[in-house]
Amino acid sequence: MSYYERHIFFCLNQRENGENACAQHDAQAGFDHCKSRVKALGLAGKGGVRVNKAGCLDRCAGGPVAVVYPDATWYSYVDASDIDEIVEKHLKHGEVVERLVLPEHVGR
Amino acid sequence: MSYYERHIFFCLNQRENGENACAQHDAQAGFDHCKSRVKALGLAGKGGVRVNKAGCLDRCAGGPVAVVYPDATWYSYVDASDIDEIVEKHLKHGEVVERLVLPEHVGR
Repeated sequence: MSYYERHIFFCLNQRENGENACAQHDAQAGFDHCKSRVKALGLAGKGGVRVNKAGCLDRCAGGPVAVVYPDATWYSYVDASDIDEIVEKHLKHGEVVERLVLPEHVGR
Repeated sequence: MSYYERHIFFCLNQRENGENACAQHDAQAGFDHCKSRVKALGLAGKGGVRVNKAGCLDRCAGGPVAVVYPDATWYSYVDASDIDEIVEKHLKHGEVVERLVLPEHVGR
């Protein structure tokens, strides 16, 4: 059994060279909002949900991105309402939010 | 199918308050060594292995820790030879390195 039922990683990578990076697209705000919603809903912790900071996930072209494991579901989100939907549907109920899924071909 | 066949996250968290944190235990060296071995072996990339930086994974008592997804296998490692074994057995061949597995009860 997985230590966390669902473990979501947000790319918060910054680049100084002008290349595309999730931090330019309010990734920190997405992470912060997710973290606070998961906590408020009582989902956080062992056997539940962990919201994690991560470095570059190398799918920058779809940024800002996040990945939910062990499901291996990748998301590209825009704003707080997208995060709310990921929290409510996926992190709480295990239901993939299809409209936000990152297409398979999107890489760096 | 998972975008990466195996995605390993290393906690590189630092704390300023004197509490236990993976960065005090050479986590950066473990990450760097893993990243360079995976690259040297030609395992890196889509359909292969991704070696990722992460923030606190909240299992600090077992630090330094890393987790391999989608397998959801947690490791506590000590040195480069531990990393070599994780790379060779688990990341390359999908075989869990039992001697390094973090016990279920280890948390923050």
